[in-house]
Amino acid sequence: MRQLNEQSIEDIALGAALLGTGGGGDPYIGKLMALQAIKKYGPIDIISIDEVPDDALIVPSAMMGAPTVLIEKIPNGSEFKRAFEVIEKFLSKGKIFATVPIEAGGVNSMVPLLVAAQMRIPIVDCDGMGRAFPELQMVTYHLEGITATPMVITDEKGNVGLLDTISNNWAENIARAMTVSMGGAVMINIYHMTGKQLKKSSIRDIMTYSERIGRTIREISQIEGSSIKKLLEVCNGYELFRGKIVDVLRETKRGFNFGTAKIDGIENCKGEKLEINFQNENLIAKKGNKILATVPDLICNVDLESMLPITTEALKYGRRIITIGIPCDTKWRTSKGIETVGPRYFGYDIDYIPVEERVKGVE
Amino acid sequence: MRQLNEQSIEDIALGAALLGTGGGGDPYIGKLMALQAIKKYGPIDIISIDEVPDDALIVPSAMMGAPTVLIEKIPNGSEFKRAFEVIEKFLSKGKIFATVPIEAGGVNSMVPLLVAAQMRIPIVDCDGMGRAFPELQMVTYHLEGITATPMVITDEKGNVGLLDTISNNWAENIARAMTVSMGGAVMINIYHMTGKQLKKSSIRDIMTYSERIGRTIREISQIEGSSIKKLLEVCNGYELFRGKIVDVLRETKRGFNFGTAKIDGIENCKGEKLEINFQNENLIAKKGNKILATVPDLICNVDLESMLPITTEALKYGRRIITIGIPCDTKWRTSKGIETVGPRYFGYDIDYIPVEERVKGVE
Repeated sequence: MRQLNEQSIEDIALGAALLGTGGGGDPYIGKLMALQAIKKYGPIDIISIDEVPDDALIVPSAMMGAPTVLIEKIPNGSEFKRAFEVIEKFLSKGKIFATVPIEAGGVNSMVPLLVAAQMRIPIVDCDGMGRAFPELQMVTYHLEGITATPMVITDEKGNVGLLDTISNNWAENIARAMTVSMGGAVMINIYHMTGKQLKKSSIRDIMTYSERIGRTIREISQIEGSSIKKLLEVCNGYELFRGKIVDVLRETKRGFNFGTAKIDGIENCKGEKLEINFQNENLIAKKGNKILATVPDLICNVDLESMLPITTEALKYGRRIITIGIPCDTKWRTSKGIETVGPRYFGYDIDYIPVEERVKGVE
Repeated sequence: MRQLNEQSIEDIALGAALLGTGGGGDPYIGKLMALQAIKKYGPIDIISIDEVPDDALIVPSAMMGAPTVLIEKIPNGSEFKRAFEVIEKFLSKGKIFATVPIEAGGVNSMVPLLVAAQMRIPIVDCDGMGRAFPELQMVTYHLEGITATPMVITDEKGNVGLLDTISNNWAENIARAMTVSMGGAVMINIYHMTGKQLKKSSIRDIMTYSERIGRTIREISQIEGSSIKKLLEVCNGYELFRGKIVDVLRETKRGFNFGTAKIDGIENCKGEKLEINFQNENLIAKKGNKILATVPDLICNVDLESMLPITTEALKYGRRIITIGIPCDTKWRTSKGIETVGPRYFGYDIDYIPVEERVKGVE
């Protein structure tokens, strides 16, 4: 167990925004929310997954919705506590021991910190994706057969919903419709489980990993002319492309941000063209007709100068970026993993080939 | 208290379909559902509102959704009991004393009969509209400040949702989105209240009234060449138009059936044209540029030959119909009533003028 200080929180938000692969929310908003919570409620304890008793009750916390909405419709803070109190009461399995993030992301790594601060419980150093994905069933918990419901949905206005569904995909369908009707971004508590289930199904040490990435980005962003190499080393990543954004098509529908970014190559990529398709998160990176990387591997954009991660809602004409590919956690490379979050699930007629193999073929 | 026999149920379904003003569901499906429930669970007791103790817990039951969906997506029966058990458990105010309909309609007058049969509780002879309306806050309970939530939503697949909202309009918004995502038609339990609240807010004797109307329709439909006069007498209605349907525009969006029916006059209306706008229920009847009737008054279509009521989903080219106007319950003629269900709420720039006054001006 350790306590998170302000620097840790800033670094986690930054690193998680990279792992968010374009989604998971804006790290600036996430960071402000978490820092304010510490100020108001005191320090937050983060514990290792090994410190969780097998019979402990764990309830993950997250925001759900379209990132473009979240940057304008800021939570008021009360919805986190309300949601947690409702699920605790409804489960009636006693006091909740700890909360965890569902995914890594600028906001969604911070939300459980707010909940932990407000409820005075620890946060566990793990999550259910090791990155961000757009839909509720896209978690390693789902791969292990843990059910998403009973889940709670609350909004900043004070509306509360409770769902008990026949499958995790139905939880996604119905909760998504509720999210849209509640204004496009809501607070959820979902996938309650025991400590034992958490240990089996989670991706370990993600907060610590995010912090290390964030610290690295912070350090290299402060040194002019510093190279991306150090960042690639820390996250085992590959530089896929560098270029200038020349077009972004964006559409908010069914509660998601769908879109395509077009990037013209610069420096060693001059004359080449990259296209990135996203649904909240970056899904496919294609150079000309060549696929460079696909989900579930991580496709991350960072600013060419500052090395700061760029979320999909912040993609805009003229920004110079480096696109990075990072191998996903091995839990996603199983057949159920690929079925759940592979390119075909998202409607692309592309086989999943690990980014490290695709990179060999390209270079 | 009395027990409902098969003939009563058939007559109630028929009469309620007329009061449904085009919505509230197909009476044939409703009738079959209720008759099957009696066969399986035994007779159903119907009690007068005066027989309900002031402190009794009352929970209305209904189907929610687009009528065009309901005629193809038939309930499997288990969702009624499940919804009722969930709301009873969640409220934890003890056993529910009785159920009631929310609205009059071919299906929605029958659904509480199913629930009553399955739960072995009585149904109270009253409802919250005295007709049918498309949205959840359009009930006399709402006019009396009774809150719609906690409400339960279930589907035939087994998904369950619970809502606790900050207003009855938010209950409508979120529940409507859930209904669409759950397939377009769901079972709900909503507006739980005490016997005392029921007595103050309900429209009395609606089942008995529906039965009387249904019996009249049955009797006149069996006599060739019989006139509509007897039906108009029973429901204090006015014949507004007779004609042949020449066009029906229909669109299912946001979980509702919206549309317009165009009718060319025949017999005494020859040469005239009627247009009826509907949102599940008939809203506005306009002859040329002259408004004949608007919500909240009842606009009902019956078959010219059989006198059987025609729901909006059954409107089709070539059918010969008589359009009837019936004054609504006086509860709807208050300023809050008109604000909640008057023509302007539905987007029509028309003042509400009672049908009996409009008819004087026209004829």
